[in-house]
Amino acid sequence: MAPRQFEPPSGTRDFLAGALRTRERVFAQIREVFERYGFEPLQTPAFERLETLTGKYGDEGDKLIFKILRRGEHEATGETDLALRYDMTVPLARVVAGYGSQLPTPYKRYAMGPVWRADRPGKGRFREFTQCDVDVVGSGSPLADAEVVCALTDALDAVGVREYRVLVNSRQALSGLLEAYGIPADLGGGVLITLDKLDKLTPEKVSAELVEARSLDPDIATALVGDLTAADAVERMQTVLKDSEVGRAGLDEIGQLLELATPRIGAERIAFVPSLVRGLDYYTGVIFEVVAEGMPGSIASGGRYDGLISALGGPDVPACGGSLGVERIIGLLSADDGDEHLIDVAATLIAEDTASEVMGFVARLRDVGLRTEVYLAASRKLAKQLKWAAERKARFTLIYGAADKNAGLITVRDMDTGEQGQVPTNELAAYLTEKCAPSR
Amino acid sequence: MAPRQFEPPSGTRDFLAGALRTRERVFAQIREVFERYGFEPLQTPAFERLETLTGKYGDEGDKLIFKILRRGEHEATGETDLALRYDMTVPLARVVAGYGSQLPTPYKRYAMGPVWRADRPGKGRFREFTQCDVDVVGSGSPLADAEVVCALTDALDAVGVREYRVLVNSRQALSGLLEAYGIPADLGGGVLITLDKLDKLTPEKVSAELVEARSLDPDIATALVGDLTAADAVERMQTVLKDSEVGRAGLDEIGQLLELATPRIGAERIAFVPSLVRGLDYYTGVIFEVVAEGMPGSIASGGRYDGLISALGGPDVPACGGSLGVERIIGLLSADDGDEHLIDVAATLIAEDTASEVMGFVARLRDVGLRTEVYLAASRKLAKQLKWAAERKARFTLIYGAADKNAGLITVRDMDTGEQGQVPTNELAAYLTEKCAPSR
Repeated sequence: MAPRQFEPPSGTRDFLAGALRTRERVFAQIREVFERYGFEPLQTPAFERLETLTGKYGDEGDKLIFKILRRGEHEATGETDLALRYDMTVPLARVVAGYGSQLPTPYKRYAMGPVWRADRPGKGRFREFTQCDVDVVGSGSPLADAEVVCALTDALDAVGVREYRVLVNSRQALSGLLEAYGIPADLGGGVLITLDKLDKLTPEKVSAELVEARSLDPDIATALVGDLTAADAVERMQTVLKDSEVGRAGLDEIGQLLELATPRIGAERIAFVPSLVRGLDYYTGVIFEVVAEGMPGSIASGGRYDGLISALGGPDVPACGGSLGVERIIGLLSADDGDEHLIDVAATLIAEDTASEVMGFVARLRDVGLRTEVYLAASRKLAKQLKWAAERKARFTLIYGAADKNAGLITVRDMDTGEQGQVPTNELAAYLTEKCAPSR
Repeated sequence: MAPRQFEPPSGTRDFLAGALRTRERVFAQIREVFERYGFEPLQTPAFERLETLTGKYGDEGDKLIFKILRRGEHEATGETDLALRYDMTVPLARVVAGYGSQLPTPYKRYAMGPVWRADRPGKGRFREFTQCDVDVVGSGSPLADAEVVCALTDALDAVGVREYRVLVNSRQALSGLLEAYGIPADLGGGVLITLDKLDKLTPEKVSAELVEARSLDPDIATALVGDLTAADAVERMQTVLKDSEVGRAGLDEIGQLLELATPRIGAERIAFVPSLVRGLDYYTGVIFEVVAEGMPGSIASGGRYDGLISALGGPDVPACGGSLGVERIIGLLSADDGDEHLIDVAATLIAEDTASEVMGFVARLRDVGLRTEVYLAASRKLAKQLKWAAERKARFTLIYGAADKNAGLITVRDMDTGEQGQVPTNELAAYLTEKCAPSR
């Protein structure tokens, strides 16, 4: 069964009821947290004009954009004019540019929906996956940075991921670091990319790469890596960074974020990590990553990116934001809800001429909010219908036979205990509402 | 402002918070009804392999499919290999074929999500729009037809659209009609397409089109249109259809649907309409359309299509289903929630050194579920911050000045009445929870 033509396209997934319900529950929990923070939802189209996206993600990113062929008479040209959304940030920049004063100031928005990247599909890597972003556009306040970090960690708490650590640094602190160790400006970017590997490679390997791949003076490399990996790295950096203006500015913004966010997050879950770099070079202020024990990579990340909205075609406004690695988080959660009742009530139909009456009972149960199904196959055999009710994991099953009908009663079978009894038909909805109440 | 490059692509829309919340509320109401009926959600990818879609929608439909260019080394060929989802039915057929016994029998599923069609955008016509389908795959029972119709009308009731009429007919009844009036098989399809216009054109115009465009004998055309538009059309058709086997089968399936669905829907809202045709030729049994006063076209429609799943590449199983015109319904609803509070509490920040404390108050309010925002701009002037709180339509505003702080109090301003008073900071969450309870 299931030959290739019936599978979803490479890198995409079909979500059947169980998996989809888990996803929707997680999305709803996250959405509720963002709403409590006053973030507003934004939904943009699945595709944008091609020119809106190209040139925004670097050469490598551009290659991963799904492009849509022109239609009608233009189809034969092989030209493309639209492209699938690659992230949530470029559409945000377009919206901020286009709607201007229609938006609140600052504009605090969240976006949760699919993005598409033509990456090589692999374990846990998809071509269609959900991104989940919060951003504050139009505020340079450290409170905005703290709101973003706390909204993301509150969302993690809400979905039940509580063993995490928020690593905080600042682009200005990193500039101060380069200055303090006398690293030439043209080497700075490469040095930072290598330093970012300190969480994966040994200090010796990082030092070697700094010298070999980044042309850094061996003495400087040794001192820098030694200081960053020392037990008192934070204190050493605080001393070193105080010597430059940019370093002091970096320490200051890190300090403000920690002061505002620590009471919420807890001192054991947030810390200044001087070697945190974050790959993307558009960050201008604080940067952060959230990591969890036993998980590779980060489960949330972000920072301040004051120049990005204008670089993406929007107005020149300060902004900060972050992403929740929602696919990774869902992957962590056990999808085991095997014991749960899929429906509250299964109605059997053992006599054709009672169909209309049974539909009436069913309608009343649905009216009181009970998830109710009626048997739709042709068999009128009770045994077969009870098997169906068990497969549907019904909490209760209804049986309406001739004896029931003559007495104005209906038989209710408790599928957990196997017990059954008769209930007056006009009391059925009230009876089952009470019975189902605790389990729902 | 808003030059073209900042608009969403032609035929698509950005949904800002207000419109999006209205949509999400409607989707949630509909979803809840479908779940009560025991329909399971299914979500398939935004795109399918091109060959899954082509040839399934007729020549006209094929032209409206958005095709995705191949990537990497294949990009220059101009070839396409993927295409955006055009409807929910072809993906359903693929899933039924691919997952087989993993799915319940019958498989009752709903799907609600965007589809994409390269239609000419126009008033109320979009290239990206939400489709909302319920289908029962694997049951030939009239109960299944009734479940589909009632799930859709219950959903209409749930979203507040109650003035509608369900028009019912049957493909078999239409075949019996053609037979009864001696209409040759090769003319049948065209005749039905013209008859479908009886709700828009005068009987004379329909008769003329039957003769001119469909080559129907003028006497037959006059008799047919006369009978279908007579005050007692239903009785005339019941008599006429009894003469053929297919006509009797049609009357029988219409009768069963009416018997099962009328108690739920109400006799005044559902009727046999012998001239109802429905354009799509894949229907094999009962067909229905839901119309509402003052609305062009239908707000829901569907029917039984026993051969379609196999024609679309799935197994040969009976099936029926229907669609809710959810975009049309949302268009009907007044988007006016202008008086509603966007947030519960706006926290001002008038002294820099209280930022951390104010963040603490805000965190506690969010913990009790209150939608709370803190002022993120640079000004420390109260007047400016109160203006912001009013723009955010906050229910209450917090002010924490030096006098408040010294007394262990915080000032709470009721934004509806303008009244303000002081509350002990440790009682703030309880106080505001109670105050906000009735309005939420």
